[in-house]
Amino acid sequence: MKISLTQVKGLQFVARDESGHKIIVDTEKEKGGFDKGIIPLRLLMIALAGCMAMDIVSIVQKKGGKFTKFEMELEGVQAEKHPKRFAKIIYNFNCAGDFKREDLLRAFELSRDQYCSVLATLKDPPEIVFNI
Amino acid sequence: MKISLTQVKGLQFVARDESGHKIIVDTEKEKGGFDKGIIPLRLLMIALAGCMAMDIVSIVQKKGGKFTKFEMELEGVQAEKHPKRFAKIIYNFNCAGDFKREDLLRAFELSRDQYCSVLATLKDPPEIVFNI
Repeated sequence: MKISLTQVKGLQFVARDESGHKIIVDTEKEKGGFDKGIIPLRLLMIALAGCMAMDIVSIVQKKGGKFTKFEMELEGVQAEKHPKRFAKIIYNFNCAGDFKREDLLRAFELSRDQYCSVLATLKDPPEIVFNI
Repeated sequence: MKISLTQVKGLQFVARDESGHKIIVDTEKEKGGFDKGIIPLRLLMIALAGCMAMDIVSIVQKKGGKFTKFEMELEGVQAEKHPKRFAKIIYNFNCAGDFKREDLLRAFELSRDQYCSVLATLKDPPEIVFNI
């Protein structure tokens, strides 16, 4: 599985996946970017949210549930010391529809403990290899 | 720092940051998505690539270097066992311009060891709190 990242200008980049989808990765103007895209730390939260959301929606639907609203908000609390890694990430769920609350809870636990590949990568970090 | 993720349809979601930037998070049609956006595991790689790229470009520029091309490709190798976390991530750099190779190497080391907040979050994972 691959992605590429190419500088556009300043600290603005375009990221592409193997299927041709692309997004702009950018930062605030004061930091040398152009503020036209999402910063990397927030993309990390979006990766976590998206992975768990896909698990949870799939599992609840398999059990016959239907969401009229499925929303997650993630809040990242950064460490004070540089490089200000996320010390804590808080997930808030905001869902409505025709589903059993126990199915939602169980789906969330299955994603957290067994299915979510992004969260599993954070729990047991990958070996990182650099060719420069 | 916050993001939100809202279901659009099936396993397609829209993610928003606090400044109003948004991206589509999606998956393959066979998996219940609509293939209009990047999957979460690839977003994790983009977060890593973006964070290091911003550090490296900034540092090399401060030392007087200029890139005519700055590109990174990341390859994620997944574990065979579910949930198929990334067991290894390989970074390949493809840069050209007027800069000292030693400055690029040093910038990369500084990002890896000190500056990159996304990589630091993977090295020392956050506490995760769920409100459901």
